[in-house]
Amino acid sequence: MNRDIYQEPLVSRYTSREMQELFSERFKFTHWRKCWVALAEAQHELGLAAVTAEMVAELKANVDNINFEVAAAKEREIRHDVMAHVFAYGQQCPLAEPIIHLGATSQFVVCNTDLLIQKRALHLIKRALLTVIANLAEFCTRHKDLATLGFTHYQPAQPTTVGKRNTLYLQDLLMDLEYIEQLEGQIKARGAKGTVGTQATFIELFAGDHDKVRELDRLVAQKIGFDQVFAVTGQTYPRKLDMKTAETLAGIGASAHKFAVDLRLLSNLKVQEEPFERKQVGSSAMAYKRNPMRSERMTGLARKLMGLPANFAATAANQWFERTLDDSAIRRMDLAQAFLLTDAILKLYINITNDMVVYPKQVERHLKEELPFMATEKILMACVERGKSRQEMHEVIREHSVAAGLDVKNQGLRNNLLERLADDERVPFDLQELNGLIGNYQQFTGRAAEQTTEFLQEQVAPVLEQYRDLLGDIDATLSV
Amino acid sequence: MNRDIYQEPLVSRYTSREMQELFSERFKFTHWRKCWVALAEAQHELGLAAVTAEMVAELKANVDNINFEVAAAKEREIRHDVMAHVFAYGQQCPLAEPIIHLGATSQFVVCNTDLLIQKRALHLIKRALLTVIANLAEFCTRHKDLATLGFTHYQPAQPTTVGKRNTLYLQDLLMDLEYIEQLEGQIKARGAKGTVGTQATFIELFAGDHDKVRELDRLVAQKIGFDQVFAVTGQTYPRKLDMKTAETLAGIGASAHKFAVDLRLLSNLKVQEEPFERKQVGSSAMAYKRNPMRSERMTGLARKLMGLPANFAATAANQWFERTLDDSAIRRMDLAQAFLLTDAILKLYINITNDMVVYPKQVERHLKEELPFMATEKILMACVERGKSRQEMHEVIREHSVAAGLDVKNQGLRNNLLERLADDERVPFDLQELNGLIGNYQQFTGRAAEQTTEFLQEQVAPVLEQYRDLLGDIDATLSV
Amino acid sequence: MNRDIYQEPLVSRYTSREMQELFSERFKFTHWRKCWVALAEAQHELGLAAVTAEMVAELKANVDNINFEVAAAKEREIRHDVMAHVFAYGQQCPLAEPIIHLGATSQFVVCNTDLLIQKRALHLIKRALLTVIANLAEFCTRHKDLATLGFTHYQPAQPTTVGKRNTLYLQDLLMDLEYIEQLEGQIKARGAKGTVGTQATFIELFAGDHDKVRELDRLVAQKIGFDQVFAVTGQTYPRKLDMKTAETLAGIGASAHKFAVDLRLLSNLKVQEEPFERKQVGSSAMAYKRNPMRSERMTGLARKLMGLPANFAATAANQWFERTLDDSAIRRMDLAQAFLLTDAILKLYINITNDMVVYPKQVERHLKEELPFMATEKILMACVERGKSRQEMHEVIREHSVAAGLDVKNQGLRNNLLERLADDERVPFDLQELNGLIGNYQQFTGRAAEQTTEFLQEQVAPVLEQYRDLLGDIDATLSV
Amino acid sequence: MNRDIYQEPLVSRYTSREMQELFSERFKFTHWRKCWVALAEAQHELGLAAVTAEMVAELKANVDNINFEVAAAKEREIRHDVMAHVFAYGQQCPLAEPIIHLGATSQFVVCNTDLLIQKRALHLIKRALLTVIANLAEFCTRHKDLATLGFTHYQPAQPTTVGKRNTLYLQDLLMDLEYIEQLEGQIKARGAKGTVGTQATFIELFAGDHDKVRELDRLVAQKIGFDQVFAVTGQTYPRKLDMKTAETLAGIGASAHKFAVDLRLLSNLKVQEEPFERKQVGSSAMAYKRNPMRSERMTGLARKLMGLPANFAATAANQWFERTLDDSAIRRMDLAQAFLLTDAILKLYINITNDMVVYPKQVERHLKEELPFMATEKILMACVERGKSRQEMHEVIREHSVAAGLDVKNQGLRNNLLERLADDERVPFDLQELNGLIGNYQQFTGRAAEQTTEFLQEQVAPVLEQYRDLLGDIDATLSV
Repeated sequence: MNRDIYQEPLVSRYTSREMQELFSERFKFTHWRKCWVALAEAQHELGLAAVTAEMVAELKANVDNINFEVAAAKEREIRHDVMAHVFAYGQQCPLAEPIIHLGATSQFVVCNTDLLIQKRALHLIKRALLTVIANLAEFCTRHKDLATLGFTHYQPAQPTTVGKRNTLYLQDLLMDLEYIEQLEGQIKARGAKGTVGTQATFIELFAGDHDKVRELDRLVAQKIGFDQVFAVTGQTYPRKLDMKTAETLAGIGASAHKFAVDLRLLSNLKVQEEPFERKQVGSSAMAYKRNPMRSERMTGLARKLMGLPANFAATAANQWFERTLDDSAIRRMDLAQAFLLTDAILKLYINITNDMVVYPKQVERHLKEELPFMATEKILMACVERGKSRQEMHEVIREHSVAAGLDVKNQGLRNNLLERLADDERVPFDLQELNGLIGNYQQFTGRAAEQTTEFLQEQVAPVLEQYRDLLGDIDATLSV
Repeated sequence: MNRDIYQEPLVSRYTSREMQELFSERFKFTHWRKCWVALAEAQHELGLAAVTAEMVAELKANVDNINFEVAAAKEREIRHDVMAHVFAYGQQCPLAEPIIHLGATSQFVVCNTDLLIQKRALHLIKRALLTVIANLAEFCTRHKDLATLGFTHYQPAQPTTVGKRNTLYLQDLLMDLEYIEQLEGQIKARGAKGTVGTQATFIELFAGDHDKVRELDRLVAQKIGFDQVFAVTGQTYPRKLDMKTAETLAGIGASAHKFAVDLRLLSNLKVQEEPFERKQVGSSAMAYKRNPMRSERMTGLARKLMGLPANFAATAANQWFERTLDDSAIRRMDLAQAFLLTDAILKLYINITNDMVVYPKQVERHLKEELPFMATEKILMACVERGKSRQEMHEVIREHSVAAGLDVKNQGLRNNLLERLADDERVPFDLQELNGLIGNYQQFTGRAAEQTTEFLQEQVAPVLEQYRDLLGDIDATLSV
Repeated sequence: MNRDIYQEPLVSRYTSREMQELFSERFKFTHWRKCWVALAEAQHELGLAAVTAEMVAELKANVDNINFEVAAAKEREIRHDVMAHVFAYGQQCPLAEPIIHLGATSQFVVCNTDLLIQKRALHLIKRALLTVIANLAEFCTRHKDLATLGFTHYQPAQPTTVGKRNTLYLQDLLMDLEYIEQLEGQIKARGAKGTVGTQATFIELFAGDHDKVRELDRLVAQKIGFDQVFAVTGQTYPRKLDMKTAETLAGIGASAHKFAVDLRLLSNLKVQEEPFERKQVGSSAMAYKRNPMRSERMTGLARKLMGLPANFAATAANQWFERTLDDSAIRRMDLAQAFLLTDAILKLYINITNDMVVYPKQVERHLKEELPFMATEKILMACVERGKSRQEMHEVIREHSVAAGLDVKNQGLRNNLLERLADDERVPFDLQELNGLIGNYQQFTGRAAEQTTEFLQEQVAPVLEQYRDLLGDIDATLSV
Repeated sequence: MNRDIYQEPLVSRYTSREMQELFSERFKFTHWRKCWVALAEAQHELGLAAVTAEMVAELKANVDNINFEVAAAKEREIRHDVMAHVFAYGQQCPLAEPIIHLGATSQFVVCNTDLLIQKRALHLIKRALLTVIANLAEFCTRHKDLATLGFTHYQPAQPTTVGKRNTLYLQDLLMDLEYIEQLEGQIKARGAKGTVGTQATFIELFAGDHDKVRELDRLVAQKIGFDQVFAVTGQTYPRKLDMKTAETLAGIGASAHKFAVDLRLLSNLKVQEEPFERKQVGSSAMAYKRNPMRSERMTGLARKLMGLPANFAATAANQWFERTLDDSAIRRMDLAQAFLLTDAILKLYINITNDMVVYPKQVERHLKEELPFMATEKILMACVERGKSRQEMHEVIREHSVAAGLDVKNQGLRNNLLERLADDERVPFDLQELNGLIGNYQQFTGRAAEQTTEFLQEQVAPVLEQYRDLLGDIDATLSV
């Protein structure tokens, strides 16, 4: 690592090697050459005399041994990266030199390679996402019955279960998965469309044979790994696709952010935590701290990720006519960032869910403190069953609840709500009956456990089954 | 209109009455009552003794005659809109009063109604979008052969056709349509989930009968118009859905923005324009102006629309646990704004494409000025066919092109590129041959016309056929 | 209120009447007329014969009696609001009719009025902001000594005081105030610049007298209430100013958001709360709840506000040449929204800080639970003073702290850290000495109280003194 | 450059070495050590016995020879960068080891160094901005008289001058400069505040001497290069400052974006261009092209820059209490990106304005084509002078203008507006008089030239004079 100049933290700190490689120069330029091979081969197969089998063979033989320095020197001279790489490739392929890039425009290699990178990157993301889903499903199963305080407004509301709460994160991730699948259907090859997308040079080369040119488009796409090709394009593939890609990834960011913020709050409550490494230092000054650093990092990374779609929307919306270059520098940065951020976030998500900790004793302690309040809904229902008006009882209970709450806050007393209700003649129960109503608080969780089971069986299991082959070991070790 | 205080311009100036009504108090509160009816009816059907057929009938009879003032007065007192409307409904339904909202939480009516509004609003959007698609398809057909300058970097590149260029806008809109269809599959009822989503009150009401409670959830959803219901929820439906909704609409914004900016540029070139009304004043001081005001307005509205998804992402990402209320005020504004903006944009898009003007004489004039440049690609290909190196010829042509371009700019000369090339001995053609190569410039458009036809037949026609019933007269008259 | 169509919630629910009026049609059109009066009067004063004193008098007499219907009818016909109002004004001023708007372009009235609205709106914001500052200063003073847990990572860190914590919110608001002052210096009149800003019509009217035209510019600005005028403009004032305005307001949004989120967390801890109204219903189902609804609303409103500057940046960045109209619809909405949102947020902030509640018993309870941990920094320092290595002791204390923390979480034990340390021979203190080190926990708050006092005296008091006249009763009653 | 993994394009392609170095590990860690030196030295000077002159000398001697590998190995072990660097520094300073970081928290070095980096980076930005201002001022002077079409709605409006138009870009940049100056006043040291900002450890060290601790705060700040220190802080300096920093830089982005978009449009019109390098290849397929690649790149970079403030706003708004770590990863990326993007944009802006090209022949050609339209305002004024109603004449001229415009568009005729007007009896001028009114079109530019001179003399010159020492050679050579 060069310590004298800025290093991108996504690479130096947060992401997987696999994702970093997809956005490298090596991957890009190697696949430019693969595009040129595909073009020449398809032209040859379709009977273009100028392109011989020997030329194709020569091109194929030189896909991987890129002479980077030659290309870089040429680019400094002519300020055009594609032409520079055509030149460098031509140096290594004297025979094929005249037909490299024949009939193509720069965006032939640039767009098709970009699309391929995104396709591959999306596959990595999908695999990581499925791992999180599997981890969380396992967690939900384990804790499906564990009653815990449910919160609305971050105020104790009614009990739910730890498992049920986590199905909500899972459901978010399933929606993300559906949008990944939708996006996979949108990523098509740009194919061989020529300048401004009219295929004019190709129809010239093939002497007006429209069928051959359509076939060339399809064939090239297939050779570089796509089963679909955009029906029409300008100079580039539609930038609208990038917007959808960014939104799909940002969706994962939003899901992860919600999970991470909740975990940071649970951490404060001491009821649930990310795994903690034995030697980790929480603070230089406060040795006792166990900070939820991974969740906090997820939060920050997700925030950045969620900020990216707007850039892509603006780029798509401001492309003039067949193409303008104001998309170049920003896409160069933001497509990589979007995938790298998602990679980093999912790596953290896997790391955390591999070993997420719950403290049942603390879960119970918090719940019991609020139990009399929790029971008010049940008491309200019971009053209605005894013929009381729901609205009137709601008001009676509200008044005593607020008063009991204030006693806790003002005087540090324990919760005296049941006593207060028993003493109120409008309430048709005595203290014993009221305590009976609370009974086993597990029942206050309603169908939480059943919902969890149903959800896992009906929604999650089929997905994990469908993608069984994608699941496997992902290295979620963090470097910092 | 009240002129003494701020009026939302989306309503006072830009949108359709239909969309305005969907986001009105009347629609909302009427559908809250429909939710309460559905709940009572389903409870009755599933055998809950407390809810009688008479009660249900009473509730049904009072769905539309909302006593707004009673509800408003109550809300001022208790600061809770749902409870205020329960109270007001109860006043009109003395029999059903004790069982209104039985077992439900506020979000039962709020979420289910919100979802219904979005479903309906999305339907209006889809219908308008299809109308634009139909208009543009007709425009593409009409102009599929009309050769025009294609631009990259907003510099003349190679010819394309007017029809072909417009297929690019169409393709963007087809992608929007696919995402609308995807979103339709995501919008499900929140159903009857109770506080924090555990259905605890319902399982209590139905004495532990899980099947009945699941059936209640499904039945209520069906009665209010949904065939799907969220498998699990917290207190509300997942806010992630709103993010997807906003992104789907913002996609339409991006598509429209690109179209509008291009049209504004074409307007400057005097080759294509939005329809102009006979009495319209372009400027208070410059009477001759024909400003592309509708495209400009579309641009601004789309910019705002594209800014909204970030808000929804932040809201989804920051919902704590089963729900926090920081979603309320912002959703109240932004969901309405997102749909209203899209409505306004599509209304403009329909209005413009109903009667979009092309000036073929101007199209031709611009093309001819750049024709020698346009032909360089063809000349380059011809040189290669005669055995010249593509790279060498590219450089020769580049030098002369730049020089010829400078002559135009510096001296106001006409384009002398062909003469320059004919005089260069490295070029294997004389002036006559070069002029011959230019020949009929129509051929420089390659497969533009064919692509247009293929695209319309293969991609657009099936969609228009599928949604034939949705197409029809939409009032695209603008009020300002 | 019209219940049949969408109503802007900012107006119907959240904002002050004063702010709503600033963005009304009445304010706008009245001030257009004031601009026309100022122009005519200045032209007359500078000796332009065509403009007589009688005409000016006639114009002045009709400033307030706007014939809205005439203008609206004309606008429907010609689609140009300024020309429509020139027409309507002319109907009422037959004498002055030929010289209304003489030499001006639409933006003369539009820009100058917009700038005036912003200036006034900013003044309202400044006044409300100062009220919050005064409220918080009073709160800080009252609680400057009250020791409370300080949090980093939302984990107990070291004690601070309630007053000191609140100086951080105050400091944010002081920065906002400085940016308001900076912005006030940027808001200048557009003056009388004519079409595309060249003053060509005015130099024509004044027969080439440059001094008179410069004076006209200055004089008009002064008459409508500005002491500065933009040196140069295109057709409009620079849209960059709007960006700065939005950023300044969004700054207030960010400050308020941080405060609100903290308060929502404190609410969960039961140590600090927004005031609660006696009859307020927290939940339709959970009568006992005291939800921090105002802080939650602030959070949501601030989120929306913080999303607006990007729109203004995009508009400024995409204005082509002397002006394009893609700024119109979006500014119409967003300038109003930015000020209305800020107004709503500050109204809430005032409402909350008017009567914010602290529960000292709960503050103390939380602090004592964590006290042994809090003391580790002090113990560490004491060990260093006894000659131990800071790094070694940090590690020893860290290990025991983590273990003691786990005991709490896993077994529900009370904090046993001091016992653990006393038992470790590497630690140079016994249990009694360690308990002595904890002593009066008030001392753990270091200089928090003194910092608070110094900050209030040195930073806040001068500001409140400077703006004494602006402080006063602001109605912070909420309507919903 | 490592070609196997992703490389940040801002570094590999676009920015200055100076800016890259400011955000390097070397700069950061060197300045951490400088902070530790300043702390020890100040503690020694204020009489803290534990800190000796020898220790301070030892620390000073080891500021630059950072043992990066030792620190990195330690960080891998304990996951805490500051503690790792304390350890590494201590290895090199055995004497001072026990007192390194004495009383401090991590944020002592992190925040103070971050603030210093920003201060320095802002200085680089200011210098580059001033260079652009100087370049543009020179350009305005040169072209202050050159009449050119002014555009509104990107439709020909009235003539202005090339110099005058460019004063608008200059005025935007002057506003940016004012906000830089404002920001410079906001960037203060975090000083020596200790954990959660209470200075508890320092007041302990100095045995309750409040004056000494205040002095320590001030003294440390001064030693590391600040003349101001934040009055109060939590664990970190207020994140609100970052928001203001990002907004200030984004302001430059918006200014540059507007300039760049205009230049791209002017490039299409062939009237103004960025300098073009002799060997630059415009397109791989279209050799003749001279694409405005630098302006396009500026556009894209500025778009990304304008997207960043929202991230900082969200971070500031979501910092809980004294600090949460969700700011870390995102600030690590975004602060660097914001400054690097601004650096890259200004480098481009300098490069372009060093040698921006105008084609007066083309400027004139465009102007003359629209001259009859341009004259309508003048004709309108002349008609009013002859006693005609402004409103009536406006309508007459409007009708003929629209018709003449349509003739141009529909039939390729030359502009026949004057003939049409002369033939209309309502117009009180014949053709000769009308031609006379057009006369020397230079006069249609009104006060454009004078405004330019006044603006340069009154607004720009003083700034350039004030910052004379900052102006100088900046290397604006582009690497790609």
